[in-house]
Amino acid sequence: MNEPACALCAATGGALVFQAEKFRVIRAQEAGFPAFYRVVWTAHVAEFSSLDLNDRALCMAAVCAVEQVLREQLQPTKINLAALGNVVPHLHWHVIARFGWDSHFPAPVWGSPQRPVDGAAVVALAARLDEVDDAIARALSA
Amino acid sequence: MNEPACALCAATGGALVFQAEKFRVIRAQEAGFPAFYRVVWTAHVAEFSSLDLNDRALCMAAVCAVEQVLREQLQPTKINLAALGNVVPHLHWHVIARFGWDSHFPAPVWGSPQRPVDGAAVVALAARLDEVDDAIARALSA
Repeated sequence: MNEPACALCAATGGALVFQAEKFRVIRAQEAGFPAFYRVVWTAHVAEFSSLDLNDRALCMAAVCAVEQVLREQLQPTKINLAALGNVVPHLHWHVIARFGWDSHFPAPVWGSPQRPVDGAAVVALAARLDEVDDAIARALSA
Repeated sequence: MNEPACALCAATGGALVFQAEKFRVIRAQEAGFPAFYRVVWTAHVAEFSSLDLNDRALCMAAVCAVEQVLREQLQPTKINLAALGNVVPHLHWHVIARFGWDSHFPAPVWGSPQRPVDGAAVVALAARLDEVDDAIARALSA
C-alpha cells in the first residue's frame, strides 16, 4: 500500500499528535490557521468510500474526536471538515477550528482573505495548542 | 428545531434528488461545477459531532452513497467532501465530483481558478446528471 511518491506515505505531514494503526492525527502548519489538524489514513487510499464500513466508522470517530476536543477547548465559531485530496490523493480529513476573527472567515481557508491576519489572536490561539494536542491524544486513547 | 432565518431550514437549497426523514440530497447550482451535490441534514444542527452515533453513521452512509454513484457514473478525477457551514451553520455535506479539466482543479472549488471554464465539458457533464440523480435516489432507496 505504501507509495513512495506520495507525500503522506513518505512523511508524517505535520506534528504528530496521535498514532493509531490505521490512522494518525497531525497538527498542520498552515499560516494564519494554527488550529488546523488532519486525520491521515495510514493506507494509501484516495477516496473515503473505498474504506469498508468498519474503517469508515473508525475514521469518522477519529475526525469527531478531534472536532469535539477543538469545540470543547477552543469554542470556535465553526468547525470545518473536508476530505479533498486533489493534490495529494491519499485520504486525509482536514479538521479546522475557524473563528470570526480569522483572516478568511466566513470564506473557506482555501478561499479569499476577508481581512488581514490578526497576529496577536493567532499567537494566542497557537499558545493553547499543546494542551489541545494532549486532549486529542487522551480522547483517542480512551 | 426549525429556524426560519436559516436558508436550509427555509428552503430546499437546490434541486431535490432524494428526501429521507433525517436528510435530503440536493443537486446544487454552482456555476462551472454541475456535479455538485449536498447532503443536507433535516434538523438544524451546526456541527457534525453534535449528531449521535447512529445519526453520524446514517449521514455518512448518505454521503458515501452519493460519492459512490458519482464515482461509478462519472469516473471523476477526485471526489471532494466538505462540511463547512461558515455562512449557513446548518449541517450540510458538499459532495463534489472534480475533474482535471475543471476550472479550479487541483485547487478546491472555493480557491483560485486555474484555467478558464471549459463550457463544452461542463455542458456534457451536466447532460448526464438526470441519470446520476436517478442512480443516487435508487441507491438511497435500497
